[in-house]
Amino acid sequence: MSKKVITISREFGSGGRTIAKMVAERLDYAYYDKALVERIAKESGYSEEFIERRGEDATSTSSFLFNLSRTGSGGYDGVPGISDKLYVIQYNLIKKLPEEGPCVIVGRCSDYILKDYVDSLHVFVYADSPFKADRIVRLYGERDDIPEKRLEEKDKKRKVYYKNYTGRIWGMSNNYDLCLNSGKIGIENCVDIIVKLAQL
Amino acid sequence: MSKKVITISREFGSGGRTIAKMVAERLDYAYYDKALVERIAKESGYSEEFIERRGEDATSTSSFLFNLSRTGSGGYDGVPGISDKLYVIQYNLIKKLPEEGPCVIVGRCSDYILKDYVDSLHVFVYADSPFKADRIVRLYGERDDIPEKRLEEKDKKRKVYYKNYTGRIWGMSNNYDLCLNSGKIGIENCVDIIVKLAQL
Repeated sequence: MSKKVITISREFGSGGRTIAKMVAERLDYAYYDKALVERIAKESGYSEEFIERRGEDATSTSSFLFNLSRTGSGGYDGVPGISDKLYVIQYNLIKKLPEEGPCVIVGRCSDYILKDYVDSLHVFVYADSPFKADRIVRLYGERDDIPEKRLEEKDKKRKVYYKNYTGRIWGMSNNYDLCLNSGKIGIENCVDIIVKLAQL
Repeated sequence: MSKKVITISREFGSGGRTIAKMVAERLDYAYYDKALVERIAKESGYSEEFIERRGEDATSTSSFLFNLSRTGSGGYDGVPGISDKLYVIQYNLIKKLPEEGPCVIVGRCSDYILKDYVDSLHVFVYADSPFKADRIVRLYGERDDIPEKRLEEKDKKRKVYYKNYTGRIWGMSNNYDLCLNSGKIGIENCVDIIVKLAQL
């Protein structure tokens, strides 16, 4: 395998996580999604549930990049520095993951953190709103009357989190090696393309 | 073939045009690049050379979308309305191209103009600067000491042109169905992926 690390960033409801899992299974790679939360929890001392809440969907009111040199910069809910502390732990963990063997990593700025890792493939998965709305209602049993609103809110948070910690625009094609509209291309075809490119 | 229209937008030097041509040949589709310029020239009465100059690389100082209702809005070099007039001719031509048979269209906001055409595949091709710089020097014999500067200037113009006529951000993944880093993936592999998806 020439691509030892595959990062998959995704819009909420696009099926990116499903694609990531299927790719990991097909390639027999380690799969980091919940497993990454467990590792961050272990390392930080915070609970997995807390890490999930403070994860990539969290909106931070302060900019990590611009506040690096400041002390006591405010976290998004008044607990100073916790989001930034968790990001640093996450950054160091993801940076070292390739040393443990081939893997697929879902989200958490992993495309940015491993951008200089040569044997990598960075993928972004997205889809049109009707496809995503239908998917979250079917799979997650979303309780909202308007699933489109939930989609928008979730992705807006990911966008802010990504901008905050990377300085880049979430979803801009040139952050990634490959961007796939899963609604148009189909989940199975997305998996096939990624697996084939990983094997080149 | 399920995808009867393939639009290929591309960063300068990324090999997007080469990919488009190879895809058209493999699928036996009509190929619109220079052929589109010829058609616009015929329709507008302006020379091909003039159309090329006023094409997608032209920087307009006025916004087409916001100036639609105004009269006498200034073109980018003081000739009022010519860029907008050419865009309207181009828009109408591209909109009708699918009626003539399966085709591959390069650039010129074709992804936006045909965004509602169901049997379509909209592709964006990009690459890292060293790959593009090496390519333009080898293929076009670019005379600049700093090819990176020329790359930047060309793409900046395309970005402004695209924003002006579509209101969208050039290179944002969700404008397209598929985005490919040709430097990382390779020209031949990009062609394979597009051809395979077109045939699904």
